[in-house]
Amino acid sequence: MNYKIVVQINARILLIEAAFMLPALLISLYCGEELAAAAFGKTIILIAFLFMLLHLISRGAERVFYAREGFVCVGLAWIIMSAVGCLPFYLSGEIPSYIDALFEMVSGFTTTGASIVPNVEVLSKGILYWRSFSHWIGGMGVLVFLLAIVPSNKKSGGFSLHLLRAESPGPSVGKIVPKMRRTAMILYVMYVALTVLDVIFLVAGGMNLFESFCHAFGTAGTGGFGVKADSFAGYSPYLQNVTTVFMILFGINFTCYYLLLTKQFSAVIFDEELRLYIGTILVSTILISADVYRFYGNLEETVRTAAFQVGSIITTTGYATADFDKWPSFSKSIILLLMVMGACAGSTGGGIKCSRVLILFKGLRRNIHQLLHPQRVQVVRINKRTLGENIITNTNAYLAAYVIIIILSVLVISLDGFSFETNFSAVLCTFNNIGPGLAEVGPTCNFAAYGVISKAVLIAGMLLGRLEIFPILLLFSGSTWHWSIKRRGIKWKKVRQTKSEE
Amino acid sequence: MNYKIVVQINARILLIEAAFMLPALLISLYCGEELAAAAFGKTIILIAFLFMLLHLISRGAERVFYAREGFVCVGLAWIIMSAVGCLPFYLSGEIPSYIDALFEMVSGFTTTGASIVPNVEVLSKGILYWRSFSHWIGGMGVLVFLLAIVPSNKKSGGFSLHLLRAESPGPSVGKIVPKMRRTAMILYVMYVALTVLDVIFLVAGGMNLFESFCHAFGTAGTGGFGVKADSFAGYSPYLQNVTTVFMILFGINFTCYYLLLTKQFSAVIFDEELRLYIGTILVSTILISADVYRFYGNLEETVRTAAFQVGSIITTTGYATADFDKWPSFSKSIILLLMVMGACAGSTGGGIKCSRVLILFKGLRRNIHQLLHPQRVQVVRINKRTLGENIITNTNAYLAAYVIIIILSVLVISLDGFSFETNFSAVLCTFNNIGPGLAEVGPTCNFAAYGVISKAVLIAGMLLGRLEIFPILLLFSGSTWHWSIKRRGIKWKKVRQTKSEE
Repeated sequence: MNYKIVVQINARILLIEAAFMLPALLISLYCGEELAAAAFGKTIILIAFLFMLLHLISRGAERVFYAREGFVCVGLAWIIMSAVGCLPFYLSGEIPSYIDALFEMVSGFTTTGASIVPNVEVLSKGILYWRSFSHWIGGMGVLVFLLAIVPSNKKSGGFSLHLLRAESPGPSVGKIVPKMRRTAMILYVMYVALTVLDVIFLVAGGMNLFESFCHAFGTAGTGGFGVKADSFAGYSPYLQNVTTVFMILFGINFTCYYLLLTKQFSAVIFDEELRLYIGTILVSTILISADVYRFYGNLEETVRTAAFQVGSIITTTGYATADFDKWPSFSKSIILLLMVMGACAGSTGGGIKCSRVLILFKGLRRNIHQLLHPQRVQVVRINKRTLGENIITNTNAYLAAYVIIIILSVLVISLDGFSFETNFSAVLCTFNNIGPGLAEVGPTCNFAAYGVISKAVLIAGMLLGRLEIFPILLLFSGSTWHWSIKRRGIKWKKVRQTKSEE
Repeated sequence: MNYKIVVQINARILLIEAAFMLPALLISLYCGEELAAAAFGKTIILIAFLFMLLHLISRGAERVFYAREGFVCVGLAWIIMSAVGCLPFYLSGEIPSYIDALFEMVSGFTTTGASIVPNVEVLSKGILYWRSFSHWIGGMGVLVFLLAIVPSNKKSGGFSLHLLRAESPGPSVGKIVPKMRRTAMILYVMYVALTVLDVIFLVAGGMNLFESFCHAFGTAGTGGFGVKADSFAGYSPYLQNVTTVFMILFGINFTCYYLLLTKQFSAVIFDEELRLYIGTILVSTILISADVYRFYGNLEETVRTAAFQVGSIITTTGYATADFDKWPSFSKSIILLLMVMGACAGSTGGGIKCSRVLILFKGLRRNIHQLLHPQRVQVVRINKRTLGENIITNTNAYLAAYVIIIILSVLVISLDGFSFETNFSAVLCTFNNIGPGLAEVGPTCNFAAYGVISKAVLIAGMLLGRLEIFPILLLFSGSTWHWSIKRRGIKWKKVRQTKSEE
């Protein structure tokens, strides 16, 4: 393991975090929120010290960078970033318990949007801004941001590939252009452009600038932190519809936008994942509308409310205009299904991802055919391209890990004595980075009632969900550390040599 | 597709079913239950007609028998057997609706034990016997029984292998001895011996002979139909403990008993699946005992009750001595976990099976290592033997199908408006062939309240669960039928030739 480069990258991530905290500090100063401003100030100073310390340690780091370093970097960076980023909440006294502050911060960075704050309207502007902005940076990924701004270096080898692969959601990394750094840059340019567009549409609908930015951050990162206690219910139908459209847009694979910009329309139209995603949204909206029509009695309101909730849940954003916990069980079951499914790979949304669902279904169909005709060689195709067997294997392993983590988490948090529906949906909606669940963690409730152990489990679940399980699991896997300490990479080189000789 | 052999085997299965119905007819006659006796008589006559018809159709069947024929035979046989076997319930008027009678019969054959009868104590003796006996024959499998009694035939080729493979539970077929027919015979001899032993222990504890037989059938098949409204709660602690032990014994892979009989003790002691199974039972019993001690206040009663419920749920039997729906959420979560996990492969129990859980965990660990060291070739070992990649792939596909079926089933039955906990546990406990679930389908309740569509979904779920998904899915897969009609096996032979030439 190349420890120095891991430390070096983490130092840079902290520096970026401090830079991102500056606007929040300025907002606090501008609004005269002294406690919040002081908390941001102290945190920035602490980060500066930490950066210098880590920078000294990591001097002379070699550029050796493999998959392992990528996973460890990403896993560590997210944990450190959250542990430090939650200090303003804690130091300002607005969230008096550290574990609660950490929960809120992890919920922000992982774009979950589950909150332990009973009433967000009492929070100061600076804190609200930082809370929403954490969605934005967490949505596309802070390491992807680092890649986008750091100048290219020919020697860096697998560096950018392994970082992007470890942080980006989805079963395979979509390279937009051959160079990873340029890919990261293009991603962020499109991300900024779409966010700005969202702000413009919101401001045009009469929302004030501060709220527009906060909501655009929450929408772009598919996070779900808002600034109002009733989430989006109090806003005009126009603002709700704008947000529905943008939530759905941010749940689409960003590669599609690049394809549109470069006029490759047919590739977008025939994209199987996009079709599944859009089709699921349409069918779910129709089914839920039919099921809840009797509650609203008005077609426009019914469809608007159904579409908002469907868009919010499938993209794992978590904004709400209705308390879907009060909906009939059929609609609630659809909501749970959407929670699990999630948005497209390569978007800012969470969940299993539509492309994984496609791979699972197609892999299953292949397996059934294989049972009938054991001698035939059958491949799985998506978008007319043959999928590598390792992608299918990894997707299946992902599902297995997903199910195991959900079962174990429900088991542990059920010690707090809540109902099964509460516990199950709490785990689903943190692990899938959604936000509100059902029953006692429904859209009108929050996670404050859980005990410390349960909160720790849910925090771990949010990180596992956002980073797609493996970077966090590897961080706690003996073989990640053990092997490298014992053999210092000698054996691996040996294996590679043997392989190439064969 | 060799249609004639499929018809021939189904005809034989019907004949066996009629033979098994005779004792029930005799009991009805002996007890003077005229309506029930008439119903059994009519059904047996109907079966005789059906048999002659099918026998005529299937004359001159060739012995060509591949995996496809195996799956179709098993899938069809179970559906026909249930559709005909439920006639006594319906014709006697004891279950007045045909769909309810079918639910009860499928629940019996699949060893689920979920009932739509509000009070079993009003049912006649003959019907009670048939209900319980269906567990016994369904537990080990009626096609395995057919294999065990039909004389060996050298020409039959893949016949017995494909039948046993399609009907036996578990990720791979455990051949006890090289010959499949002898394997089937050994299985049934051990099965009868253990059942008789159970009856002896129950009679020794003061249970009357009729009840002892009914309960032994339910225990042996890990079914769960009883003859009392309060299941096992009214019986003495001795009888409860005997049943706990026998439930756990019937959840063990029968290969272990053969190994014990042939004195291969170390193979049994070091069997990883057995260790996981026993370990899970011990840990769950301890955890639940600690959690529910305050309800009983008496260590003996607490442990006895916890062990009974754990044994009943992990083996997917479904007998109850306590209403675990009233237990605290932690214990309920453990119960749900055990429902999913299930017993050992090659036993009469249902669920995912301990060996699949082992394969999933080990496969996952392998995948994590592979992420770190992509160049290393790593294998998965169970009981020191390397697992074939196809077993791991199939296990993963099984889990995917399992999750998809559960999600879709919950979605459909939620149309009836019950709570999520009710729907989710109803699907889990029918699909895993357990019986009682939680909330409104808990141990003191029944499935009568669900609508016809939901009952149909749950019936399909029980069959899918017992036959481990693929035989039933293949029955409804276009390629099973379509391909054979179009190309009559020509292409397959071609592929095989090409393969062997390569």
